[in-house]
Amino acid sequence: MSLGTFLFGSPLASSQERAERIGAAAGIPIFGLDALSSAAYGPEAALTLLIPLGAAGSLYIVPISASIIVLLTIVFFSYRQTIEAYPGGGGSYTVARENLGVSAGLLAAAALMIDYILVVAVGISAGVGALVSAAPDLQRHTLLLCLGILVLITLVNLRGVREAGAVFMIPTYLFVGTLLVAIGIGVVKSLLSGGHPAPVVTPPASRGAAAAVGVWLLLKAFASGCTAMTGVEAVSNGVKAFREPTAPTARRTLTIIIALLIVMLAGIAYLVRAYGIVATDPGQPGYQSVLSIMLGAVTGKGLFYYVTIGSILLVLALSANTAFADFPRLCRVIALDGFLPRSLAIRGRRLIYSQGVYVLAALSALLLIVFGGVTDRLIPLFAVGAFLAFTLSQTGMVFHWKRVGGRGARHSIFVNGFGALATGLTVVVVLVAKFLEGAWITLLLIPGLLLLMVSVRRQYHRVALEIDCQTPLELKSFRPPMVVVPIDRWSRVAKQAFTFAFNISPDVVGLHVDSGERTVYLQKQWQDYVEHPVQELGMGAPKLVCLKSEYRFIINPIVDYVLQLERANPGRQIAVVIPELVEHRWYYFFLHNQRAAALKALLYLKGSPRIIVINVPWYMQGR
Amino acid sequence: MSLGTFLFGSPLASSQERAERIGAAAGIPIFGLDALSSAAYGPEAALTLLIPLGAAGSLYIVPISASIIVLLTIVFFSYRQTIEAYPGGGGSYTVARENLGVSAGLLAAAALMIDYILVVAVGISAGVGALVSAAPDLQRHTLLLCLGILVLITLVNLRGVREAGAVFMIPTYLFVGTLLVAIGIGVVKSLLSGGHPAPVVTPPASRGAAAAVGVWLLLKAFASGCTAMTGVEAVSNGVKAFREPTAPTARRTLTIIIALLIVMLAGIAYLVRAYGIVATDPGQPGYQSVLSIMLGAVTGKGLFYYVTIGSILLVLALSANTAFADFPRLCRVIALDGFLPRSLAIRGRRLIYSQGVYVLAALSALLLIVFGGVTDRLIPLFAVGAFLAFTLSQTGMVFHWKRVGGRGARHSIFVNGFGALATGLTVVVVLVAKFLEGAWITLLLIPGLLLLMVSVRRQYHRVALEIDCQTPLELKSFRPPMVVVPIDRWSRVAKQAFTFAFNISPDVVGLHVDSGERTVYLQKQWQDYVEHPVQELGMGAPKLVCLKSEYRFIINPIVDYVLQLERANPGRQIAVVIPELVEHRWYYFFLHNQRAAALKALLYLKGSPRIIVINVPWYMQGR
Repeated sequence: MSLGTFLFGSPLASSQERAERIGAAAGIPIFGLDALSSAAYGPEAALTLLIPLGAAGSLYIVPISASIIVLLTIVFFSYRQTIEAYPGGGGSYTVARENLGVSAGLLAAAALMIDYILVVAVGISAGVGALVSAAPDLQRHTLLLCLGILVLITLVNLRGVREAGAVFMIPTYLFVGTLLVAIGIGVVKSLLSGGHPAPVVTPPASRGAAAAVGVWLLLKAFASGCTAMTGVEAVSNGVKAFREPTAPTARRTLTIIIALLIVMLAGIAYLVRAYGIVATDPGQPGYQSVLSIMLGAVTGKGLFYYVTIGSILLVLALSANTAFADFPRLCRVIALDGFLPRSLAIRGRRLIYSQGVYVLAALSALLLIVFGGVTDRLIPLFAVGAFLAFTLSQTGMVFHWKRVGGRGARHSIFVNGFGALATGLTVVVVLVAKFLEGAWITLLLIPGLLLLMVSVRRQYHRVALEIDCQTPLELKSFRPPMVVVPIDRWSRVAKQAFTFAFNISPDVVGLHVDSGERTVYLQKQWQDYVEHPVQELGMGAPKLVCLKSEYRFIINPIVDYVLQLERANPGRQIAVVIPELVEHRWYYFFLHNQRAAALKALLYLKGSPRIIVINVPWYMQGR
Repeated sequence: MSLGTFLFGSPLASSQERAERIGAAAGIPIFGLDALSSAAYGPEAALTLLIPLGAAGSLYIVPISASIIVLLTIVFFSYRQTIEAYPGGGGSYTVARENLGVSAGLLAAAALMIDYILVVAVGISAGVGALVSAAPDLQRHTLLLCLGILVLITLVNLRGVREAGAVFMIPTYLFVGTLLVAIGIGVVKSLLSGGHPAPVVTPPASRGAAAAVGVWLLLKAFASGCTAMTGVEAVSNGVKAFREPTAPTARRTLTIIIALLIVMLAGIAYLVRAYGIVATDPGQPGYQSVLSIMLGAVTGKGLFYYVTIGSILLVLALSANTAFADFPRLCRVIALDGFLPRSLAIRGRRLIYSQGVYVLAALSALLLIVFGGVTDRLIPLFAVGAFLAFTLSQTGMVFHWKRVGGRGARHSIFVNGFGALATGLTVVVVLVAKFLEGAWITLLLIPGLLLLMVSVRRQYHRVALEIDCQTPLELKSFRPPMVVVPIDRWSRVAKQAFTFAFNISPDVVGLHVDSGERTVYLQKQWQDYVEHPVQELGMGAPKLVCLKSEYRFIINPIVDYVLQLERANPGRQIAVVIPELVEHRWYYFFLHNQRAAALKALLYLKGSPRIIVINVPWYMQGR
């Protein structure tokens, strides 16, 4: 078994594609991990902003969570419709491009791509951050841990979609299961105690209120809480990965993901209020995550607490996987339209778009390294992209229904239009609330990416125009090329090269760079070994050209001679036949000067279409 | 001016070699820096071992220094003779090889090469070590400083021998000058005061005697002091770098270097005794180098003190340069004999053996990085190699004189024989005294290097045997090759490739890997654009072969087809013509799949001598 097979699994035939498709059970961890895991940081992000309100903070989490849940429901219904309308995979790019035009599509794509890269970096570093706050000894290995998890996720994804589903299923369901159980217990306790349950472990007391409630503060808390909604787009983009009937399977998957997320968000909000939990200052001594405080209050710090906290860490770190499932598909669609390098649309050995996986891994690794694995500062950046894509997608759907018309179109227009309005407003809120904290970076990156995509498309177009050809071969120009063979000394290697040279053309020149005594000897050999046999066949005597080299350079004089020959023979092809010794062990490489490679590179660089380089390899025995 | 010219200077013609040669004034810094700078650490190394003797330590430095000076004188006279006998450059390798046989020569070479690599690492790290003990803030940048100096020395050396001499002249003469002045002042003061001068700055008091004097201790002190003698070999190796008359110039240079070194060693020993200076524990608080204590005692810590200490730091750090001057020459001689890769014998643009400079820089950088720039542990390793080479060289000279005979031969035999005996004994002393501290590493490395050199020679021999050829071209086998042209779609790129293919052979096959709908279209085009024109010329219709690919691989089916074609046509050459799009900007590289390169690499790897790969590049316009 080769290393490739061990790491990535054996290649899959195109005909195996159907078997690689997934059902809802595997679809939830693959496309839902990002959305579900955000239950672990969305409420926390909102509550952190409410700290200045003191104990009153825990009261406001209910209306904020309610708004987020309403928004989530709107987006859910919109995307349900999108899946139905675009069973071939209806990501924001496709929908916006088809209904709003190419620019809108690219805008959505750019926003989403940036978002996915951020999701990977932020997810992994958040998971590792939670881990090292539990085990401070690991603190100094933060970056290493981040990159290790990234490599792991990348490898799993390179093995294909189904394998990824299998791997991520256990932590995902463990997380959802334990959190739901904890919420269930908490809600029952709260109801039994008439809304005022006694905490098992008392939550930290709030500091006194330092600020009055204001619209601005609530808006910011809402904007932060909206990070809980990233990842909702993933299912609609990946419809084709689902088992037949694809669209219904995808819709069922989306419904389950959103339902679970809503129950978790609502449950957390209810318990936070019931137990009067307020956030603690991150980065300060005594910091504890909201979920940790809540779990402690509901169940105490026993085995269950630790299992749940463990699954939260795991799911946070693995939430990057959703981006890995979706980013390559997004890139593929864009690449098929020519806006990204075409290799992003090629399916690798395991039927996934491997290049996209590499690109995502590389870019997020770069982010992790630049920020040393501590990506707190990136969090404000990453809801903008998602909501921009949501808005464009929903707006696109409105135009879609208008165009399609028919029964129920008005209802559909209303659903998607309302979605567009709600997410559009959210974009504005998020942008305004987080502009200074980092959202401006996204605003700069998106046009950059747009520009890149447009340039790629333009270059492809230029190439296509230039190489397009609707004319047949012009055979009147058939004429053997002039052949130049650089020769150092007569050897089997040289003999093989000259044999090939005379096989393709009678017009052969030997080219020797003068090295003193050996030249005279070579000239003698040339007569005996080349001139005579060729003349005996009645052909003209081939020339041996000897060049002087003032600066001991071997390659430059050859290149100059070839270029001069090309100028002197307009319309004629010049073939440079380079004899090359190929050793059967790589470490013998160092024993031979690499002139053949250098000569070839230089001839390429000087680039004339009439100069063709031919390597005639002599393979050393002994293999 | 290109970057290359800026960094390395413009290329030098072979005819400029004479002008690049150096006189004694430049020869001293180039070939003597290593020897001269060792005055700064030889006595110190000996005195450190005498610390246990307490105040009595300063007494024993005189006999130890005297022994070293005697040994140095013996070695000096031996090498004077060597230079005379080998005016073409008589390093230990040459002398031992010619007189004692190849094995002895290689042994000397291996010992010397390891020594030079160590000299670079130890010299630079000693200099940086002295610097950071003066400026502790720089401590954490130790490795960076080491590597920076290494890069600097490498660059200077790549500019050629003369430039290196000019750069290193000032620090060398400053060092020698200030140290001699200090010694002079000290000696005068001492004589005026009847042998008991009053120190300006009182030297640190010695600790009480902790051990009695023993032969073992004195031997170890002597062995450590012998590090002062490394680098003496350099001049005899580099005779050819000197101006005409080369041998006398080289001898004069050697004489001056040794004379300066002896004066400095003797002066330091005298003053150490006169001022009762004992070494302080390196690595302990209050550590100060012996030269620093001595300078303080003689002149006080004024401007002169700081200038002298500064020049010592500079010279230590730059002492690596001697190795850079000599190591490439040594490698070149060995490479000419085929025991090292031949590229080591090629002179670069500035008439120096650039490859050797790179190899030395890389290996010593490796040492510096592995040891983090703190190479104290390497010091015990590096006198063994030098003295082993001395011994072999002197023994070789004895046999040389025996063979040559003539007037004065007996005297010469005596001089070299005595040198061999003395240095041979020193090897044993150094080995025994320092075996556990690290000399055993050298004992392991030398056979490893020997083995490498013998293998290189064997492989060259094997290649030479295999490619040797004394037979003329066999023209009866002239027959155009079968040509295979992979084609994806008809384009200008493809058209150009087919034009070349038909230019070199009438036997052309188009090879297409099936990709669904496009195949049918291509087959139609093939008829119109290729078959018809070729048939009109009365040639047979060329075939378009379409291959199925189960795993979406494009390259493997092509390779398989070519290999199959080769097997089916024994004795026939198969030319694979690969159309390739060459973009004029490197970043467009990412836009195109690199199948051409991959196909070529794979065909090479499968390696059949009858398969020849031909790139037909299509250069994109727009340059």
